[in-house]
Amino acid sequence: MKAYRELEERHRRLSALGGAQCVLFWDRSTMMPSGGAGARAEPMATLSVPAHARRTGPAMADLRAAAAAGRDALDAWQAANLRERRRNFRHASAVPGALVDRLSRAASAAEMRWRDARAASDFASLAPLLADLVSLVREQAAAKASAFGTSPYDALLDAYDPGRTSEEVDLLFGRLRETLPPLLEAVLERQAREPAPVAPEGPFDEAVQHALGRRLMEILRFDFAHGRLDVSHHPFTGGVPDDVRITTRYKADDFTSSVMAVIHETGHAQYERGLPGEWRGQPVGRAPGMTLHESQSLLFEMQAGRSDAFLRHAAPLFAASLGAEGPAFDPANLIRLYRRVSRGLIRVDADEVTYPLHVLLRYELERALVSGDLAVEDLPSAWNDGMRRLLGVVPPDDARGVLQDIHWPSGSFGYFPTYTLGALAAAQLFEAARRAEPELVPALGRGDFAPLLDWLRANVHGRGSLLGPSELIAEATGSPLGTDVFEAHLRERYLGAA
Amino acid sequence: MKAYRELEERHRRLSALGGAQCVLFWDRSTMMPSGGAGARAEPMATLSVPAHARRTGPAMADLRAAAAAGRDALDAWQAANLRERRRNFRHASAVPGALVDRLSRAASAAEMRWRDARAASDFASLAPLLADLVSLVREQAAAKASAFGTSPYDALLDAYDPGRTSEEVDLLFGRLRETLPPLLEAVLERQAREPAPVAPEGPFDEAVQHALGRRLMEILRFDFAHGRLDVSHHPFTGGVPDDVRITTRYKADDFTSSVMAVIHETGHAQYERGLPGEWRGQPVGRAPGMTLHESQSLLFEMQAGRSDAFLRHAAPLFAASLGAEGPAFDPANLIRLYRRVSRGLIRVDADEVTYPLHVLLRYELERALVSGDLAVEDLPSAWNDGMRRLLGVVPPDDARGVLQDIHWPSGSFGYFPTYTLGALAAAQLFEAARRAEPELVPALGRGDFAPLLDWLRANVHGRGSLLGPSELIAEATGSPLGTDVFEAHLRERYLGAA
Repeated sequence: MKAYRELEERHRRLSALGGAQCVLFWDRSTMMPSGGAGARAEPMATLSVPAHARRTGPAMADLRAAAAAGRDALDAWQAANLRERRRNFRHASAVPGALVDRLSRAASAAEMRWRDARAASDFASLAPLLADLVSLVREQAAAKASAFGTSPYDALLDAYDPGRTSEEVDLLFGRLRETLPPLLEAVLERQAREPAPVAPEGPFDEAVQHALGRRLMEILRFDFAHGRLDVSHHPFTGGVPDDVRITTRYKADDFTSSVMAVIHETGHAQYERGLPGEWRGQPVGRAPGMTLHESQSLLFEMQAGRSDAFLRHAAPLFAASLGAEGPAFDPANLIRLYRRVSRGLIRVDADEVTYPLHVLLRYELERALVSGDLAVEDLPSAWNDGMRRLLGVVPPDDARGVLQDIHWPSGSFGYFPTYTLGALAAAQLFEAARRAEPELVPALGRGDFAPLLDWLRANVHGRGSLLGPSELIAEATGSPLGTDVFEAHLRERYLGAA
Repeated sequence: MKAYRELEERHRRLSALGGAQCVLFWDRSTMMPSGGAGARAEPMATLSVPAHARRTGPAMADLRAAAAAGRDALDAWQAANLRERRRNFRHASAVPGALVDRLSRAASAAEMRWRDARAASDFASLAPLLADLVSLVREQAAAKASAFGTSPYDALLDAYDPGRTSEEVDLLFGRLRETLPPLLEAVLERQAREPAPVAPEGPFDEAVQHALGRRLMEILRFDFAHGRLDVSHHPFTGGVPDDVRITTRYKADDFTSSVMAVIHETGHAQYERGLPGEWRGQPVGRAPGMTLHESQSLLFEMQAGRSDAFLRHAAPLFAASLGAEGPAFDPANLIRLYRRVSRGLIRVDADEVTYPLHVLLRYELERALVSGDLAVEDLPSAWNDGMRRLLGVVPPDDARGVLQDIHWPSGSFGYFPTYTLGALAAAQLFEAARRAEPELVPALGRGDFAPLLDWLRANVHGRGSLLGPSELIAEATGSPLGTDVFEAHLRERYLGAA
């Protein structure tokens, strides 16, 4: 028990460094003037070095062994804390420090180059750096695979979605690959028979959009004593559970995107806020991976935020907050606006029907890159073939194709699946919440998120990493993660089928 | 040389932790929601522990000795870097780690208690904690004194103003104690014969005051690619030289205070910006103490900012920026407003004639506290006696008396003198700059700060800590730091004597 306590204390200090890094990252993305970038690199790098060293140092391994030896004295939370601690340690210790360094440097270089390559739609200029990076990622995956006894790709996946296997993902995504294309076809046919939505006419002042964003966060029961809303190039959720910083971006001619970004990020933020307070700074006090985190943002945005009930409530609120009026603010029009489906080229602009197809493509390709079946130089043609096959469109250039995402150039392989696994989980969790609380949807229609949030606090947020993601979803919804509820949701929303 | 290079490299990493702390501190004062305070304490404490450990660790001492042994190979900047490194090390190593811990905890406790004590004007509730703290500060001073071979108070002073002795301060302050009271009397008599200034009529919108503040920073040639202006409870300058963050605060009914706070902090900020770029992250790349730092803020605020030339230029600019007009914006009125002198109770609200008297009082009292000649319980009566003697007024309560400043409850002893030493240095440096550049004051009258800033860059900012503060002032002005130029400045400005 003494060893366990000491382990907790160490992790608390380690976690404090992580908290400091969160502030530096948030500041860099929201507040830092351009000329501060050079001076910021060193503090951010310095903070990550001791973190890595302490996480993998021999003293830490000793403590962990000692704590494991006294495991019988631990309660369920402490045991889960130890389990998560060991999982983190395995990820950190499986990869030699020198490889971590090379990966970090190769990813920085590739990410920098990617920014220019995307702007110039010039894949060739990125290819050599991306090839170097993929080769290091394959080394990393092999090292982890041999330590974990899994396949290399599963070892990467585990870092984002603990315990998830590609076998499960293949099953779920295989089903979506069958059902989504015909469903998309049917949705587009039906949509073509409906009136086209009227876009609200701007310009919408940034300060006014910001005030509307804050108002929505209040409706979503966000506590501003424990967080902020700011502006960054890409929306994100940062900070720590007691001080969650979310961001959005404003377009003068279109408020609808900033509004949904705020609702999406508030979903992430409420998850952080609801994590068990007594386990702050401990591994078990965190969310168990990105699939569940994304499930919360998508549950807020796609399930609740774009529901008929809430959009009917929101339409007059939007008009009043923006000092605007007209047919664009008619609830039926706003609903059509927020449910527009199209065979688009860009993942981040995709609707919820086509989004999984974008993810399926990336999943296929990154698995082939990691296994070595696909060479980096062949990526653009494989991308374009996949887009034609899955979505029926072909990018006119690589900027709107293979160069659109930051993930691969920044070294993130195994992340993409969590977007769609999160969408499946969001549908399944929302359905379980509605079943448990029949008043939940009517409450959304009054702008009352309390019943939804209460259910999430009890069944998801407050559980931290006591369970792994698969167990948590199964316990909260009564079923393992599947595609049925998500597909039913799409059919109901887009085809009017009950 | 190899040892010296390694020393530089180590200091660069140490300095990066300091840079991280600067961001956390700035964020806490400007951006952090109230509920984030608890979660922030741990990262801030964690960042300071390794800094202290590495600064005093034995490996560092070895390196330092090795570098000292190879000193002949160093150029003047490298030698000064080594000298500063050794000075920092002496301050850190003279005090046992356990005492540093106790001091830090006692200061936190006293500072927390002070906030309530000041609000309730209840010195008795602070007294026990302040007595504990003073006793630890005396231990600290004794430890440093024995290591440095100086008096205990001088050992504390050295941390804020390297090489300064209380013997020098006694001489300078002794002179001010003689000359200022009669000068104050004469100024007040003359002021009574002049028309009272008209206060501008608000309210002045915060966003409008903020835009005016940014406009003034531009006039003061501040580069917004390397810094920001924000709001905090007390104005301060934070960040790092390549990303300097200054703050002010806005009063709806009075723009004049926010404006001067911006000019003051921009003086600090321009010093940071002008420090030698090739020595970033090294001790010699920093300003040599608080006297010189305060000289730059006071030079901008008191010498240039409140000059006839600049205020005549600023009056119509203020009116236009604020969309205001009327007799308050008459240049002669604005000059009278910014030169109002009074026997006040509060240091931070004091004019430049009475400010040194507030500092003299604190200097006397803190020396007596450190020597043991004054007990904490006797502080309030000693304070009130001193106020009567020096300024001719007595605080009606301790909130407006001995409880007004955060310095002592936060453990800062030896800091106060630098405010007035900085005022003396500001006058002397400004006079030297005017002598060297006859066009400097006429340029201020056109809102052109370039000649002033160029002189400061060459003679103060760009020199970093190549020289100690006394040497730097003597080289830049041709004389050691004295009171003559400051006194002449006051007589000229407030009595019209040339």
